[in-house]
Amino acid sequence: MTYCVGMMLNAGLVFMSDTRTNAGLDNISTFKKMTCWETSGERAITLLSSGNLATTQAVVSLLDERTQAHDERDPSILGAPSMFQAARMVADTLREVIAQHDAAGQQADSAFGATLILGGQIKGGPPRLFMIYPEGNFVEASTDTPFFQIGETKYGRPILVRAYDPEMSFEEAMKLLLVSFDSTVKANLSVGAPFDFHLYRKDALRIETGGRIEQEDSYFKLVSQGWGDALKNALDSLPDFSLER
Amino acid sequence: MTYCVGMMLNAGLVFMSDTRTNAGLDNISTFKKMTCWETSGERAITLLSSGNLATTQAVVSLLDERTQAHDERDPSILGAPSMFQAARMVADTLREVIAQHDAAGQQADSAFGATLILGGQIKGGPPRLFMIYPEGNFVEASTDTPFFQIGETKYGRPILVRAYDPEMSFEEAMKLLLVSFDSTVKANLSVGAPFDFHLYRKDALRIETGGRIEQEDSYFKLVSQGWGDALKNALDSLPDFSLER
Repeated sequence: MTYCVGMMLNAGLVFMSDTRTNAGLDNISTFKKMTCWETSGERAITLLSSGNLATTQAVVSLLDERTQAHDERDPSILGAPSMFQAARMVADTLREVIAQHDAAGQQADSAFGATLILGGQIKGGPPRLFMIYPEGNFVEASTDTPFFQIGETKYGRPILVRAYDPEMSFEEAMKLLLVSFDSTVKANLSVGAPFDFHLYRKDALRIETGGRIEQEDSYFKLVSQGWGDALKNALDSLPDFSLER
Repeated sequence: MTYCVGMMLNAGLVFMSDTRTNAGLDNISTFKKMTCWETSGERAITLLSSGNLATTQAVVSLLDERTQAHDERDPSILGAPSMFQAARMVADTLREVIAQHDAAGQQADSAFGATLILGGQIKGGPPRLFMIYPEGNFVEASTDTPFFQIGETKYGRPILVRAYDPEMSFEEAMKLLLVSFDSTVKANLSVGAPFDFHLYRKDALRIETGGRIEQEDSYFKLVSQGWGDALKNALDSLPDFSLER
């Protein structure tokens, strides 16, 4: 399992992904699920992936190779004229990879499936955020649905739904996401730290701020431990139920 | 889908269940998923059910019939000498019903499955709480795992994990459960109000306090609306992430 979130803010885009992959409960590994491409001053694109690791790595490798071999027949994500075209390219690549694996005769239920979040900005357009399905179609975030989650989405969703605000700063958004990730980690063994993040400032058109939050990160520990007390205080702030009704 | 919680407190047991059942998205109904049996002064037992409605209703009907026909061969839940024996009886009944439906030749994947929460107290023993699986086995709550959830458990779990305290009063527990149910209802269309509840006071040995919380209940509305602000305040109380690390 996996947990990744891509979020639109007025200030730009925020991405966070966990790094745990597992084949069964007794075989866990750490893999980066976030990939960034940039042409400084012209575009910055981030991809988050969940699902079959062989599939998502193949997708990323294919997209990577195309950015290096400048071949007209295989358009590169660094050559896409718009974020919409970039999303189509990624979606087509995803569908191709899944179809190849399926065609090889394996029949496991959606075993090769993967779901992706793609976001970024290309000069001349606004920042855009997409969720790409294994079928190769995709949807775009809007003010009604300003963030996407993939993987183990349920535990961390209520806090996002309640506390998301498009006006929030990157600093506040990081706090919110770490609370959401912490709630998920506490409930599902197949999601785990470290967490990768990328904060894309609107109109930056390059990668400025990113990094990795380790399990032992002092700020993450503070949030993880402080959140329990903060929640209890929040609950205390509401009036108790009355048995006399 | 369904959402039910059974919880052990030092003060006694708390039960809450939603009432929405659905066959597809376009066919929803309201059914009570909580059943109580009592012999005043001697025992009080509560059952919460999730899963196939035909299965859970058959289980409840069979258990009910046995309490009315005093037949030695079919021991009644009102005659069980202990909560453990009551749990065995319910588990056996559940397994029987599922086996009958399966034997009729239907082969849908666990389509007839159901999971139950059983809790209560019988004179001479302490209050006990069990989760009963479709296979007919069951586990008991303890101080390490003091509550059980069945149905759509994920959205409402983080707040229970963080804010549960065995010392809490019934009034505080109701508030906590309504927040947990509200988080679930907001995220999953197949869970819905009204919510049934039963507050079993330790050593009462009868049903004292129970009822139904409607969607329009003024206290529920207060909790539902107040919780968003309370969560935002809780998040504000934690220090922001620093981009300079």
